[in-house]
Amino acid sequence: MADTSKKTFIVFSGEMDKALAAFVMANGAAAMGDDVTMFFTFWGLSIVRKPQRVATSGKSGLQRIFDALTPRGADHLKLSKLNFGGVGRHMMNRVMTEQHIMSLDELMATAREQGVKMLACTMSMDMMGFKPEEMLDGLEFVGVASYLAEAEESSLNLFI
Amino acid sequence: MADTSKKTFIVFSGEMDKALAAFVMANGAAAMGDDVTMFFTFWGLSIVRKPQRVATSGKSGLQRIFDALTPRGADHLKLSKLNFGGVGRHMMNRVMTEQHIMSLDELMATAREQGVKMLACTMSMDMMGFKPEEMLDGLEFVGVASYLAEAEESSLNLFI
Amino acid sequence: MADTSKKTFIVFSGEMDKALAAFVMANGAAAMGDDVTMFFTFWGLSIVRKPQRVATSGKSGLQRIFDALTPRGADHLKLSKLNFGGVGRHMMNRVMTEQHIMSLDELMATAREQGVKMLACTMSMDMMGFKPEEMLDGLEFVGVASYLAEAEESSLNLFI
Repeated sequence: MADTSKKTFIVFSGEMDKALAAFVMANGAAAMGDDVTMFFTFWGLSIVRKPQRVATSGKSGLQRIFDALTPRGADHLKLSKLNFGGVGRHMMNRVMTEQHIMSLDELMATAREQGVKMLACTMSMDMMGFKPEEMLDGLEFVGVASYLAEAEESSLNLFI
Repeated sequence: MADTSKKTFIVFSGEMDKALAAFVMANGAAAMGDDVTMFFTFWGLSIVRKPQRVATSGKSGLQRIFDALTPRGADHLKLSKLNFGGVGRHMMNRVMTEQHIMSLDELMATAREQGVKMLACTMSMDMMGFKPEEMLDGLEFVGVASYLAEAEESSLNLFI
Repeated sequence: MADTSKKTFIVFSGEMDKALAAFVMANGAAAMGDDVTMFFTFWGLSIVRKPQRVATSGKSGLQRIFDALTPRGADHLKLSKLNFGGVGRHMMNRVMTEQHIMSLDELMATAREQGVKMLACTMSMDMMGFKPEEMLDGLEFVGVASYLAEAEESSLNLFI
């Protein structure tokens, strides 16, 4: 039975604009007292990587290539449109500051403060070659069954 | 508690094919007697801009740049694939006419006739620099909390 | 009233990564005993085309062009990012084999074995010019009303 106080967001996309949409909704719901879970998978894992390079072992050659091609953290995401090699992202960040809109970094910090639960998909981590130690602290590493169990109890489930 | 007669669609994407999908579902649900809400945000705001240029004041320089780079209304959207500088969109429009499928303009008119509620996200409007007077008549301008409240009462919520 | 044992997935995107996400979730839910429906529409129809060319009649010239430009089946899908003319897809397939992750073909076979219901959107088929005989066996050809009826009874509905 759906519990109206739970919400889940799958963050599949690794683009800045979709990450903003996900965190704005997650924070809005958490501010209203809801129990919010974000499930980061595939390109969305980029958002919750540590920005600094972390020593890891056991990556295959292919995994090292994906690693090198994938952004590390919120400051390196692209816009899905009008990115223009990063110019669009910088413009968007400046207009957000100008309009007093929280940045993605601030939104993520707020989500943590509000207790939003953040799950990282272990199958996607295996595909991309991401190791737990290079992901942000506080993430839980789970499979799709854990996501499905959360979604089952939630009144709102979106794939972003 | 979910009310089976309500549905919401977040229209985040500004591409013609995704706009078609959103309006086909919204109209289908409205035709079945459902109470349907569409929440236009980010690139999806392009779909509900007036096609003509409207005099506005108070836009920053950055907002004027986003304004200039963003399509005005349903006739100027791209396909997400095979767009080929607009050729794909024209082909798609022609095949839709040929196959007696409603155009996006017709779908939008039908949605209005059927009383589909259309909300525009004010935070996204601030980001893109869109002013209420350049958006289609009949939109309501709301924040994410209003969307979440609608979704809470709905049996189907999709992010498009 | 939502029935916690039903789930639906709209597969709008025709990209390999999103197809993987859809089938992993569909199979996960089916393995937990849920009644799962996938609704393939627009570019997602590529995933459920037969890989071989099938003789059809009654396609318009425009439909033949879309036909020629659209992938046939799971082996020809692109990644939404880092595709690099197919190199990214091959790398992803290799890393999946290396990590003992099921391929899209295997996931699709499993979905069929588990009785996942697969619906193809007839309006999208008319747009793209796809005929029933060139789609995988076992699909049902339905309109949006059928999808909405399934979604109405489901506890999880995602648009992918």
